[in-house]
Amino acid sequence: MRIGIYPGSFDPLTYGHMDIIERALKVCDKLVVGILLNSSKNNLFSLDERVEILRHCCREYENVEVMSFGGLLTDYCKKHKINCIIRGLRAVSDFEYEITLASINRRLAPDVDTVFLMARDENLFVSSSVVREVSRYNGDISTLVPPHVAEKLKAKFS
Amino acid sequence: MRIGIYPGSFDPLTYGHMDIIERALKVCDKLVVGILLNSSKNNLFSLDERVEILRHCCREYENVEVMSFGGLLTDYCKKHKINCIIRGLRAVSDFEYEITLASINRRLAPDVDTVFLMARDENLFVSSSVVREVSRYNGDISTLVPPHVAEKLKAKFS
Amino acid sequence: MRIGIYPGSFDPLTYGHMDIIERALKVCDKLVVGILLNSSKNNLFSLDERVEILRHCCREYENVEVMSFGGLLTDYCKKHKINCIIRGLRAVSDFEYEITLASINRRLAPDVDTVFLMARDENLFVSSSVVREVSRYNGDISTLVPPHVAEKLKAKFS
Amino acid sequence: MRIGIYPGSFDPLTYGHMDIIERALKVCDKLVVGILLNSSKNNLFSLDERVEILRHCCREYENVEVMSFGGLLTDYCKKHKINCIIRGLRAVSDFEYEITLASINRRLAPDVDTVFLMARDENLFVSSSVVREVSRYNGDISTLVPPHVAEKLKAKFS
Amino acid sequence: MRIGIYPGSFDPLTYGHMDIIERALKVCDKLVVGILLNSSKNNLFSLDERVEILRHCCREYENVEVMSFGGLLTDYCKKHKINCIIRGLRAVSDFEYEITLASINRRLAPDVDTVFLMARDENLFVSSSVVREVSRYNGDISTLVPPHVAEKLKAKFS
Amino acid sequence: MRIGIYPGSFDPLTYGHMDIIERALKVCDKLVVGILLNSSKNNLFSLDERVEILRHCCREYENVEVMSFGGLLTDYCKKHKINCIIRGLRAVSDFEYEITLASINRRLAPDVDTVFLMARDENLFVSSSVVREVSRYNGDISTLVPPHVAEKLKAKFS
Repeated sequence: MRIGIYPGSFDPLTYGHMDIIERALKVCDKLVVGILLNSSKNNLFSLDERVEILRHCCREYENVEVMSFGGLLTDYCKKHKINCIIRGLRAVSDFEYEITLASINRRLAPDVDTVFLMARDENLFVSSSVVREVSRYNGDISTLVPPHVAEKLKAKFS
Repeated sequence: MRIGIYPGSFDPLTYGHMDIIERALKVCDKLVVGILLNSSKNNLFSLDERVEILRHCCREYENVEVMSFGGLLTDYCKKHKINCIIRGLRAVSDFEYEITLASINRRLAPDVDTVFLMARDENLFVSSSVVREVSRYNGDISTLVPPHVAEKLKAKFS
Repeated sequence: MRIGIYPGSFDPLTYGHMDIIERALKVCDKLVVGILLNSSKNNLFSLDERVEILRHCCREYENVEVMSFGGLLTDYCKKHKINCIIRGLRAVSDFEYEITLASINRRLAPDVDTVFLMARDENLFVSSSVVREVSRYNGDISTLVPPHVAEKLKAKFS
Repeated sequence: MRIGIYPGSFDPLTYGHMDIIERALKVCDKLVVGILLNSSKNNLFSLDERVEILRHCCREYENVEVMSFGGLLTDYCKKHKINCIIRGLRAVSDFEYEITLASINRRLAPDVDTVFLMARDENLFVSSSVVREVSRYNGDISTLVPPHVAEKLKAKFS
Repeated sequence: MRIGIYPGSFDPLTYGHMDIIERALKVCDKLVVGILLNSSKNNLFSLDERVEILRHCCREYENVEVMSFGGLLTDYCKKHKINCIIRGLRAVSDFEYEITLASINRRLAPDVDTVFLMARDENLFVSSSVVREVSRYNGDISTLVPPHVAEKLKAKFS
Repeated sequence: MRIGIYPGSFDPLTYGHMDIIERALKVCDKLVVGILLNSSKNNLFSLDERVEILRHCCREYENVEVMSFGGLLTDYCKKHKINCIIRGLRAVSDFEYEITLASINRRLAPDVDTVFLMARDENLFVSSSVVREVSRYNGDISTLVPPHVAEKLKAKFS
């Protein structure tokens, strides 16, 4: 069985993430969406809020499990028998960062492969940081995030 | 009438910025140089100082107005009937960031176009952060910034 | 008066080109679409065919003139009082090539500026070579080129 | 069932290709290695030779089928119920080309996903053109291609 | 006599750095490894610790001197008759940053050349930040840093 | 003794090449400028012409030798006790190609290092192909090539 993990901060979840999750489900039999515990970052949404948002938005996918994790991604993979890391490709700078990560993860866990998927053209430029910036000033984010996330953002900034 | 905005931190203004301002004036009938209000950043020059510097260095351009702005750039554009965002192109990483910004701004304000201009070869590698670093240690910045800026930097670091 | 030129092979014209032409008309008072005479290339459409296609597809734009030109672009600009070269930005490799071209053109004609515009997200990956390849095998190109071009392609490959 | 296709010229097959084939087998239940019929290119090995080489080198993989194909990749996918295109990622220029291809293929066949895999560090810089160049002058290619390919190359250039 | 400087944070030293140091010794008659005094950064190892680590790991190279420096690199070069700055090339984003630095340093000190060297394939993706992250969670770093550094990291995180 | 080779087509020699040659002489005790014998390319200048041009333009450098070579660069290095390959860095696409070449050359000759040097800002966008194109149409190339090359180009195209 192919079990994949799609790691990220998801602060907040965007249509770009949803796009990758849907594609990943065609490659994996089961997908763990892994929210990174990252104490050093100033997050907009708490870990609990992000877990709730992701669970809500993925509630219709039977094979998706939303989890949080700390420590090394490869340790988490070994422990949970995950054999596939899912990454979304966006821009060039991303790409460089991604092959570095994939190269290091392969050293740490040679049996875990990294699979890169590409979001639809209209989602290629969507990122969580753009969403945070636009919603902070009450800009229209309806093409960037699912309605549930839009509501949570509205509540956060009102 | 074509009204453009050239947004940035200008902390401080460099010859690279001046280069783009001059080119922008050939594309726009009027140009707003928009200094970004950015409370989260540790700026070297205060907003007032940056406004003064820009007004002084652009005093000979009749169609340039120096303003500060906060919030979403596209909101400012709509409010002030600006139909053109001017951006200077430098390196590749810049380019990626710039097409992301342009893509998002187009969603928020489809009538506002982003126009990219390219600085002269000798200004392609000039940035505010390099200027700050070099002047901090009393290095020669005479080829990087206008004399007025050089004076202000000298005063700041002495 | 700002007169721009949008140079290219246009073999064939795509929605990506149309996108840039429309944006260029907001920056220029008049736009010359300049079809490059390029004897060394194996073109799909003859120069005459490409002129016809472009004139047909741009017939509703009052300020667009379709021309062919050989020799140096900057010589053509000087001769026809063109002060602005329009280029569409697509991918990174493009970008490198474009700044090289812009840098050289500036040496040859310092008064002619290069202005870069960005096509809509859905047109960022559309190119003439992709269109030729897809239509050669009867693939669906309706989202890539205007109907008039689609017809011509169909006739060409049937 | 997930059926993938790994398209390419394979002129000749390298360790970089073998690396991707092995990884693709973890993502797909069955993998078609699709040798592109490309009449316009000056190939070193004929199509028959390339088919023989690939079949020989993949003989131990049960779920790999070596085929040649012409026309549009997406047409081939539809006809053979292939739902996944496998591509190997190497350098940045590659990456740009790959997202263009993936974007167009998605328009032509929305149900076929493109999956990018990354070769091991030591294979990231291996390409067929480098192999042809090095073996032409009798350079050591033992770390670049499987022994069977090395023999064929030796015979070709002796 | 060619005296080079290899500047960096070395927090901590990696096999990537060692790789560049060895190559630099073929280009320079003497090499200064210059540890950047950087008060604003949250370093893992103190300056003294980094000096000790570098001296220990370079103890067998006769022509290497380990120093720390603050201020402008080019001032340090002028003062110590250094005529060559050594930089290791890794990824694309690096490259952009590196040519910016080299361009500015050349303005400040035209007689000091920047020489770029490339680490072995297996070290191309090794960075201090990756090492810090992996060792923080007790991951295997034996292929990333010399044994002496591995010990220090272990002590630091236990 | 450090003997370097600066390989290339030099069709024709540009100020960008001269820039790198001058810098290479600070890194090497002796420099071979190696003109690539390349039968498959349609060269503008014959091999003999290019040798003459390079010898003329380098006549004041005592330690430069102009040679032509065919076959593998690393074979030539081994035969002539060359321990250093000099490459000029320009744009990103170049960079990718260059690290690929350097990686392969290191496999073929581990004792030969590749050293990358960077041309001055104003030479970063100068290439032989641009020079050929501009001079073909009688454009001004005085800032792109030495006077001797300009004369030869004029004669060639008149």
